Amino acid sequence: MTLSSAEVEQLKRAPEVPRILPVILNRWSPRSFDPNRDVSREDLCTLFEAARWAASSNNEQPWRYIVGRRGSEAHNKIFESFGEWNRAWAGSASVLLLGTAKKTFTPKGTPNDYAMHDLGAADATICYQATTLGLHTHQMAGFDHDVARRLFGIPEDYHLGSVMAIGYQGDPAALKMDYQREQEQTPRSRKQIGEFVFSAWEKPLEF
Amino acid sequence: MTLSSAEVEQLKRAPEVPRILPVILNRWSPRSFDPNRDVSREDLCTLFEAARWAASSNNEQPWRYIVGRRGSEAHNKIFESFGEWNRAWAGSASVLLLGTAKKTFTPKGTPNDYAMHDLGAADATICYQATTLGLHTHQMAGFDHDVARRLFGIPEDYHLGSVMAIGYQGDPAALKMDYQREQEQTPRSRKQIGEFVFSAWEKPLEF
Repeated sequence: MTLSSAEVEQLKRAPEVPRILPVILNRWSPRSFDPNRDVSREDLCTLFEAARWAASSNNEQPWRYIVGRRGSEAHNKIFESFGEWNRAWAGSASVLLLGTAKKTFTPKGTPNDYAMHDLGAADATICYQATTLGLHTHQMAGFDHDVARRLFGIPEDYHLGSVMAIGYQGDPAALKMDYQREQEQTPRSRKQIGEFVFSAWEKPLEF
Repeated sequence: MTLSSAEVEQLKRAPEVPRILPVILNRWSPRSFDPNRDVSREDLCTLFEAARWAASSNNEQPWRYIVGRRGSEAHNKIFESFGEWNRAWAGSASVLLLGTAKKTFTPKGTPNDYAMHDLGAADATICYQATTLGLHTHQMAGFDHDVARRLFGIPEDYHLGSVMAIGYQGDPAALKMDYQREQEQTPRSRKQIGEFVFSAWEKPLEF
Protein backbone atom coordinates (compact mmCIF):
# COMPACT_ATOMS: atom_id res chain seq x y z
CA MET A 1 0.00 0.00 0.00
CA THR A 2 1.22 3.46 -0.86
CA LEU A 3 1.04 6.25 1.73
CA SER A 4 -1.07 9.33 1.00
CA SER A 5 0.50 12.74 0.25
CA ALA A 6 -0.33 13.92 3.76
CA GLU A 7 1.23 10.84 5.38
CA VAL A 8 4.39 11.25 3.31
CA GLU A 9 4.60 14.95 4.16
CA GLN A 10 4.47 14.00 7.85
CA LEU A 11 7.04 11.22 7.45
CA LYS A 12 9.55 13.48 5.69
CA ARG A 13 9.50 16.15 8.38
CA ALA A 14 12.77 16.28 10.31
CA PRO A 15 12.43 15.76 14.08
CA GLU A 16 11.49 19.03 15.75
CA VAL A 17 14.31 20.91 17.46
CA PRO A 18 13.56 24.00 19.57
CA ARG A 19 14.16 27.31 17.78
CA ILE A 20 14.98 25.81 14.40
CA LEU A 21 13.39 27.68 11.52
CA PRO A 22 10.46 25.39 10.59
CA VAL A 23 11.06 25.58 6.82
CA ILE A 24 14.53 24.09 7.32
CA LEU A 25 13.00 21.01 8.94
CA ASN A 26 10.02 20.81 6.60
CA ARG A 27 11.81 21.17 3.25
CA TRP A 28 12.27 17.86 1.50
CA SER A 29 12.55 16.69 -2.10
CA PRO A 30 9.52 14.82 -3.38
CA ARG A 31 9.31 13.10 -6.73
CA SER A 32 5.52 13.10 -6.75
CA PHE A 33 4.37 16.43 -8.14
CA ASP A 34 0.81 17.39 -8.96
CA PRO A 35 0.62 17.33 -12.77
CA ASN A 36 -2.41 19.63 -12.85
CA ARG A 37 -1.59 22.42 -10.41
CA ASP A 38 0.52 25.37 -11.53
CA VAL A 39 2.83 27.61 -9.53
CA SER A 40 1.32 31.09 -9.89
CA ARG A 41 3.33 33.85 -11.53
CA GLU A 42 3.14 35.75 -8.27
CA ASP A 43 4.65 32.87 -6.29
CA LEU A 44 7.35 32.38 -8.91
CA CYS A 45 8.24 36.05 -8.68
CA THR A 46 8.40 35.77 -4.87
CA LEU A 47 10.94 32.93 -5.15
CA PHE A 48 13.27 35.10 -7.20
CA GLU A 49 12.69 38.12 -5.01
CA ALA A 50 14.00 35.94 -2.17
CA ALA A 51 16.96 34.68 -4.24
CA ARG A 52 18.03 38.26 -4.93
CA TRP A 53 19.05 38.66 -1.29
CA ALA A 54 21.29 35.59 -1.02
CA ALA A 55 24.90 36.24 -0.02
CA SER A 56 27.67 36.05 -2.61
CA SER A 57 31.38 36.58 -2.86
CA ASN A 58 32.01 40.27 -3.62
CA ASN A 59 28.23 40.61 -4.05
CA GLU A 60 28.75 39.26 -7.58
CA GLN A 61 25.38 37.43 -7.58
CA PRO A 62 26.70 34.94 -10.16
CA TRP A 63 23.41 33.03 -10.44
CA ARG A 64 21.35 33.06 -13.66
CA TYR A 65 18.20 30.98 -13.99
CA ILE A 66 16.26 29.69 -16.97
CA VAL A 67 12.63 29.11 -16.03
CA GLY A 68 10.59 26.43 -17.78
CA ARG A 69 6.88 26.57 -17.03
CA ARG A 70 4.97 23.41 -17.94
CA GLY A 71 3.97 23.62 -21.59
CA SER A 72 6.67 26.14 -22.49
CA GLU A 73 9.59 25.62 -24.86
CA ALA A 74 12.04 25.97 -21.97
CA HIS A 75 10.26 23.26 -19.94
CA ASN A 76 10.46 20.94 -22.95
CA LYS A 77 14.15 21.66 -23.51
CA ILE A 78 15.07 21.03 -19.88
CA PHE A 79 13.05 17.82 -19.95
CA GLU A 80 14.90 16.78 -23.11
CA SER A 81 18.21 16.91 -21.21
CA PHE A 82 16.96 14.36 -18.63
CA GLY A 83 17.87 10.70 -18.63
CA GLU A 84 15.31 7.95 -18.06
CA TRP A 85 15.46 8.20 -14.24
CA ASN A 86 14.37 11.83 -14.05
CA ARG A 87 12.02 11.62 -17.04
CA ALA A 88 10.04 9.10 -14.99
CA TRP A 89 8.88 11.77 -12.54
CA ALA A 90 10.10 15.32 -13.15
CA GLY A 91 7.87 16.15 -16.12
CA SER A 92 4.96 16.52 -13.71
CA ALA A 93 6.50 19.52 -11.96
CA SER A 94 4.88 22.84 -12.79
CA VAL A 95 8.29 24.52 -13.11
CA LEU A 96 11.70 23.23 -14.11
CA LEU A 97 14.41 25.71 -13.20
CA LEU A 98 17.89 25.45 -14.68
CA GLY A 99 20.51 27.17 -12.51
CA THR A 100 23.77 28.50 -13.93
CA ALA A 101 26.61 30.49 -12.39
CA LYS A 102 29.03 32.93 -14.02
CA LYS A 103 32.59 31.66 -13.67
CA THR A 104 34.23 35.09 -13.67
CA PHE A 105 33.80 38.36 -11.84
CA THR A 106 32.16 41.25 -13.72
CA PRO A 107 33.69 43.39 -15.09
CA LYS A 108 37.23 42.28 -14.19
CA GLY A 109 37.03 38.82 -15.76
CA THR A 110 39.07 37.18 -12.98
CA PRO A 111 37.97 33.66 -11.93
CA ASN A 112 35.23 33.40 -9.31
CA ASP A 113 36.00 30.18 -7.41
CA TYR A 114 32.82 30.68 -5.39
CA ALA A 115 30.38 30.75 -8.31
CA MET A 116 28.97 27.27 -7.65
CA HIS A 117 29.04 27.87 -3.89
CA ASP A 118 26.98 31.02 -4.28
CA LEU A 119 24.57 29.41 -6.74
CA GLY A 120 24.06 26.76 -4.05
CA ALA A 121 23.22 29.51 -1.56
CA ALA A 122 20.71 31.11 -3.96
CA ASP A 123 19.18 27.69 -4.69
CA ALA A 124 18.81 26.99 -0.97
CA THR A 125 17.16 30.38 -0.55
CA ILE A 126 14.65 29.52 -3.29
CA CYS A 127 13.95 26.16 -1.60
CA TYR A 128 13.26 27.72 1.81
CA GLN A 129 11.09 30.44 0.26
CA ALA A 130 9.22 27.79 -1.75
CA THR A 131 8.55 25.82 1.44
CA THR A 132 7.25 29.04 3.01
CA LEU A 133 4.74 29.31 0.15
CA GLY A 134 3.58 25.68 0.47
CA LEU A 135 5.52 24.60 -2.63
CA HIS A 136 7.95 21.72 -2.93
CA THR A 137 11.32 21.58 -4.66
CA HIS A 138 13.63 18.81 -5.82
CA GLN A 139 17.06 19.51 -7.27
CA MET A 140 18.70 17.21 -9.78
CA ALA A 141 22.27 16.90 -10.96
CA GLY A 142 21.33 14.06 -13.30
CA PHE A 143 20.75 15.74 -16.64
CA ASP A 144 22.89 15.93 -19.74
CA HIS A 145 24.84 19.13 -19.25
CA ASP A 146 26.05 19.27 -22.85
CA VAL A 147 22.53 18.90 -24.19
CA ALA A 148 21.19 21.62 -21.88
CA ARG A 149 24.06 23.95 -22.75
CA ARG A 150 23.52 23.43 -26.48
CA LEU A 151 19.71 23.70 -26.42
CA PHE A 152 19.86 27.02 -24.55
CA GLY A 153 23.11 28.35 -26.05
CA ILE A 154 24.66 28.87 -22.61
CA PRO A 155 28.17 30.35 -22.94
CA GLU A 156 31.19 28.50 -21.58
CA ASP A 157 31.69 31.27 -19.02
CA TYR A 158 28.77 29.81 -17.03
CA HIS A 159 28.75 26.65 -14.88
CA LEU A 160 25.63 24.55 -15.12
CA GLY A 161 24.23 23.94 -11.64
CA SER A 162 21.17 21.90 -10.79
CA VAL A 163 17.76 21.62 -12.36
CA MET A 164 15.14 22.31 -9.71
CA ALA A 165 11.63 20.90 -10.03
CA ILE A 166 9.13 23.22 -8.33
CA GLY A 167 5.46 22.57 -7.76
CA TYR A 168 2.79 21.15 -5.50
CA GLN A 169 3.12 17.72 -3.97
CA GLY A 170 1.32 14.99 -5.89
CA ASP A 171 0.08 11.50 -5.16
CA PRO A 172 2.99 9.16 -4.31
CA ALA A 173 1.01 6.25 -5.80
CA ALA A 174 1.30 7.90 -9.23
CA LEU A 175 5.11 7.37 -9.32
CA LYS A 176 5.79 4.83 -12.01
CA MET A 177 9.16 3.45 -10.90
CA ASP A 178 8.98 1.10 -7.91
CA TYR A 179 12.23 2.38 -6.40
CA GLN A 180 11.13 6.00 -6.65
CA ARG A 181 7.78 5.17 -5.03
CA GLU A 182 9.67 3.38 -2.27
CA GLN A 183 12.09 6.30 -1.67
CA GLU A 184 9.10 8.62 -1.42
CA GLN A 185 7.99 6.67 1.65
CA THR A 186 11.34 6.39 3.42
CA PRO A 187 12.23 8.81 6.25
CA ARG A 188 15.01 11.31 5.54
CA SER A 189 18.40 10.49 7.00
CA ARG A 190 21.38 12.68 7.85
CA LYS A 191 24.85 12.49 9.39
CA GLN A 192 25.22 13.25 13.08
CA ILE A 193 26.78 16.62 13.95
CA GLY A 194 29.96 14.92 15.19
CA GLU A 195 30.55 13.56 11.69
CA PHE A 196 30.90 16.99 10.09
CA VAL A 197 31.69 19.54 12.82
CA PHE A 198 35.28 19.51 14.03
CA SER A 199 37.55 21.42 16.42
CA ALA A 200 40.54 20.11 14.46
CA TRP A 201 40.50 18.04 11.27
CA GLU A 202 38.16 15.07 11.82
CA LYS A 203 38.19 15.63 15.58
CA PRO A 204 34.52 16.16 16.56
CA LEU A 205 33.81 19.43 18.35
CA GLU A 206 32.51 18.91 21.86
CA PHE A 207 29.41 20.90 22.70
CA MET B 1 29.18 60.67 12.35
CA THR B 2 28.86 56.91 12.55
CA LEU B 3 25.42 55.30 12.75
CA SER B 4 24.51 53.19 15.79
CA SER B 5 24.17 49.39 15.60
CA ALA B 6 20.39 49.69 15.62
CA GLU B 7 20.39 52.28 12.82
CA VAL B 8 22.69 50.10 10.71
CA GLU B 9 20.52 47.03 11.34
CA GLN B 10 17.53 49.01 10.05
CA LEU B 11 19.42 50.34 7.03
CA LYS B 12 20.59 46.86 5.96
CA ARG B 13 17.12 45.34 5.98
CA ALA B 14 15.90 44.56 2.46
CA PRO B 15 12.62 46.25 1.47
CA GLU B 16 9.70 44.23 2.77
CA VAL B 17 7.95 42.02 0.24
CA PRO B 18 4.72 40.21 1.19
CA ARG B 19 5.17 36.55 2.17
CA ILE B 20 8.97 36.56 2.02
CA LEU B 21 10.57 34.69 4.89
CA PRO B 22 11.76 37.54 7.15
CA VAL B 23 15.22 36.02 7.80
CA ILE B 24 15.95 36.16 4.07
CA LEU B 25 15.38 39.92 4.08
CA ASN B 26 17.06 40.55 7.43
CA ARG B 27 20.26 38.55 6.91
CA TRP B 28 23.19 40.77 6.06
CA SER B 29 26.97 40.61 6.56
CA PRO B 30 28.29 43.04 9.15
CA ARG B 31 31.96 43.64 9.84
CA SER B 32 31.29 45.08 13.29
CA PHE B 33 31.07 42.20 15.73
CA ASP B 34 30.80 42.48 19.49
CA PRO B 35 34.25 41.49 20.81
CA ASN B 36 32.88 40.62 24.25
CA ARG B 37 29.75 38.58 23.58
CA ASP B 38 30.02 34.86 22.89
CA VAL B 39 27.77 32.60 20.85
CA SER B 40 26.48 30.01 23.34
CA ARG B 41 27.27 26.34 22.83
CA GLU B 42 23.57 25.71 22.56
CA ASP B 43 23.14 28.23 19.74
CA LEU B 44 26.18 26.86 17.96
CA CYS B 45 24.74 23.38 18.15
CA THR B 46 21.42 24.67 16.77
CA LEU B 47 23.22 26.11 13.73
CA PHE B 48 24.66 22.71 12.85
CA GLU B 49 21.42 20.93 13.60
CA ALA B 50 19.92 23.19 10.91
CA ALA B 51 22.81 22.55 8.50
CA ARG B 52 22.26 18.79 8.78
CA TRP B 53 18.98 19.12 6.87
CA ALA B 54 20.32 21.03 3.88
CA ALA B 55 19.82 19.39 0.48
CA SER B 56 22.73 17.74 -1.29
CA SER B 57 23.43 15.77 -4.43
CA ASN B 58 22.82 12.08 -3.69
CA ASN B 59 22.39 13.09 -0.02
CA GLU B 60 26.20 13.04 0.17
CA GLN B 61 26.30 15.92 2.70
CA PRO B 62 29.83 16.85 1.56
CA TRP B 63 30.22 19.70 4.06
CA ARG B 64 32.75 19.51 6.90
CA TYR B 65 33.29 22.43 9.26
CA ILE B 66 36.13 23.44 11.54
CA VAL B 67 34.84 25.61 14.37
CA GLY B 68 37.08 28.22 15.96
CA ARG B 69 35.69 29.72 19.13
CA ARG B 70 37.37 32.97 20.22
CA GLY B 71 40.43 32.10 22.30
CA SER B 72 40.76 28.60 20.87
CA GLU B 73 43.62 27.25 18.79
CA ALA B 74 41.31 26.84 15.79
CA HIS B 75 40.20 30.50 15.98
CA ASN B 76 43.86 31.57 16.04
CA LYS B 77 44.74 29.37 13.08
CA ILE B 78 41.87 30.62 10.95
CA PHE B 79 42.80 34.18 11.86
CA GLU B 80 46.39 33.47 10.85
CA SER B 81 45.22 32.64 7.32
CA PHE B 82 43.63 36.12 6.90
CA GLY B 83 45.19 38.98 5.00
CA GLU B 84 45.27 42.52 6.34
CA TRP B 85 41.75 43.37 5.11
CA ASN B 86 39.98 40.67 7.11
CA ARG B 87 42.35 40.88 10.09
CA ALA B 88 41.11 44.45 10.52
CA TRP B 89 37.65 43.28 11.60
CA ALA B 90 37.07 39.51 11.72
CA GLY B 91 39.03 38.77 14.89
CA SER B 92 36.17 40.27 16.92
CA ALA B 93 33.72 37.56 15.88
CA SER B 94 32.91 35.01 18.56
CA VAL B 95 33.18 32.16 16.08
CA LEU B 96 35.19 31.68 12.90
CA LEU B 97 33.91 28.75 10.89
CA LEU B 98 35.97 27.20 8.12
CA GLY B 99 33.82 25.33 5.59
CA THR B 100 35.18 22.51 3.46
CA ALA B 101 33.54 20.12 0.99
CA LYS B 102 34.50 16.59 0.02
CA LYS B 103 35.32 16.45 -3.68
CA THR B 104 34.30 12.81 -4.17
CA PHE B 105 31.32 10.64 -3.37
CA THR B 106 31.60 8.20 -0.47
CA PRO B 107 32.30 5.32 -0.81
CA LYS B 108 32.55 5.22 -4.61
CA GLY B 109 35.26 7.87 -4.97
CA THR B 110 33.72 9.34 -8.15
CA PRO B 111 33.94 13.15 -8.51
CA ASN B 112 31.19 15.20 -6.89
CA ASP B 113 30.82 18.26 -9.11
CA TYR B 114 28.24 19.64 -6.71
CA ALA B 115 30.42 19.65 -3.58
CA MET B 116 30.89 23.44 -3.51
CA HIS B 117 27.27 23.99 -4.55
CA ASP B 118 26.05 21.91 -1.64
CA LEU B 119 28.46 23.51 0.82
CA GLY B 120 26.94 26.82 -0.32
CA ALA B 121 23.49 25.46 0.50
CA ALA B 122 24.60 24.32 3.97
CA ASP B 123 26.30 27.69 4.58
CA ALA B 124 23.12 29.55 3.57
CA THR B 125 21.15 27.32 5.94
CA ILE B 126 23.51 28.24 8.79
CA CYS B 127 23.13 31.93 7.93
CA TYR B 128 19.33 31.85 7.98
CA GLN B 129 19.30 29.84 11.20
CA ALA B 130 21.79 32.28 12.74
CA THR B 131 19.55 35.20 11.79
CA THR B 132 16.65 33.35 13.44
CA LEU B 133 18.70 33.23 16.67
CA GLY B 134 19.59 36.94 16.57
CA LEU B 135 23.14 36.23 15.42
CA HIS B 136 24.97 37.72 12.46
CA THR B 137 27.19 36.05 9.89
CA HIS B 138 29.73 37.26 7.34
CA GLN B 139 31.39 34.90 4.88
CA MET B 140 34.85 35.55 3.48
CA ALA B 141 36.65 34.10 0.50
CA GLY B 142 39.69 36.27 1.25
CA PHE B 143 41.98 34.04 3.28
CA ASP B 144 45.11 32.13 2.33
CA HIS B 145 43.79 28.72 1.35
CA ASP B 146 47.22 27.10 1.39
CA VAL B 147 47.94 28.37 4.89
CA ALA B 148 44.56 27.17 6.20
CA ARG B 149 44.98 23.78 4.53
CA ARG B 150 48.44 23.37 6.00
CA LEU B 151 47.61 24.59 9.53
CA PHE B 152 44.68 22.17 9.79
CA GLY B 153 46.10 19.34 7.70
CA ILE B 154 43.06 19.29 5.41
CA PRO B 155 43.42 16.55 2.75
CA GLU B 156 43.44 17.42 -0.95
CA ASP B 157 40.15 15.56 -1.36
CA TYR B 158 38.39 18.53 0.25
CA HIS B 159 37.66 21.93 -1.30
CA LEU B 160 38.10 24.90 0.97
CA GLY B 161 34.94 26.99 1.01
CA SER B 162 34.40 30.20 2.92
CA VAL B 163 35.31 31.29 6.41
CA MET B 164 32.18 32.47 8.18
CA ALA B 165 32.37 34.96 11.03
CA ILE B 166 29.49 34.38 13.47
CA GLY B 167 28.57 36.52 16.42
CA TYR B 168 26.58 39.45 17.74
CA GLN B 169 26.57 42.77 15.97
CA GLY B 170 29.04 45.29 17.38
CA ASP B 171 29.48 49.04 17.27
CA PRO B 172 30.12 50.22 13.68
CA ALA B 173 32.23 53.07 15.06
CA ALA B 174 34.77 50.53 16.31
CA LEU B 175 35.73 49.50 12.76
CA LYS B 176 39.27 50.66 12.21
CA MET B 177 39.37 50.91 8.40
CA ASP B 178 37.55 53.94 6.97
CA TYR B 179 36.29 52.02 3.95
CA GLN B 180 34.92 49.19 6.10
CA ARG B 181 33.16 51.67 8.38
CA GLU B 182 31.69 53.33 5.30
CA GLN B 183 30.48 50.02 3.80
CA GLU B 184 28.83 49.22 7.12
CA GLN B 185 26.59 52.25 6.60
CA THR B 186 25.70 51.73 2.93
CA PRO B 187 22.37 50.11 1.98
CA ARG B 188 22.55 46.65 0.41
CA SER B 189 22.14 46.49 -3.36
CA ARG B 190 21.07 43.68 -5.65
CA LYS B 191 20.37 42.96 -9.32
CA GLN B 192 16.80 43.24 -10.56
CA ILE B 193 15.00 39.95 -11.24
CA GLY B 194 15.09 40.60 -15.00
CA GLU B 195 18.90 40.53 -14.87
CA PHE B 196 19.11 36.92 -13.68
CA VAL B 197 15.79 35.17 -14.49
CA PHE B 198 15.35 34.19 -18.13
CA SER B 199 12.86 32.35 -20.33
CA ALA B 200 15.68 31.77 -22.84
CA TRP B 201 19.35 32.67 -22.43
CA GLU B 202 19.58 36.33 -21.37
CA LYS B 203 15.96 36.92 -22.36
CA PRO B 204 14.21 38.15 -19.19
CA LEU B 205 11.21 36.09 -18.12
CA GLU B 206 8.01 38.09 -18.18
CA PHE B 207 5.90 37.77 -15.05
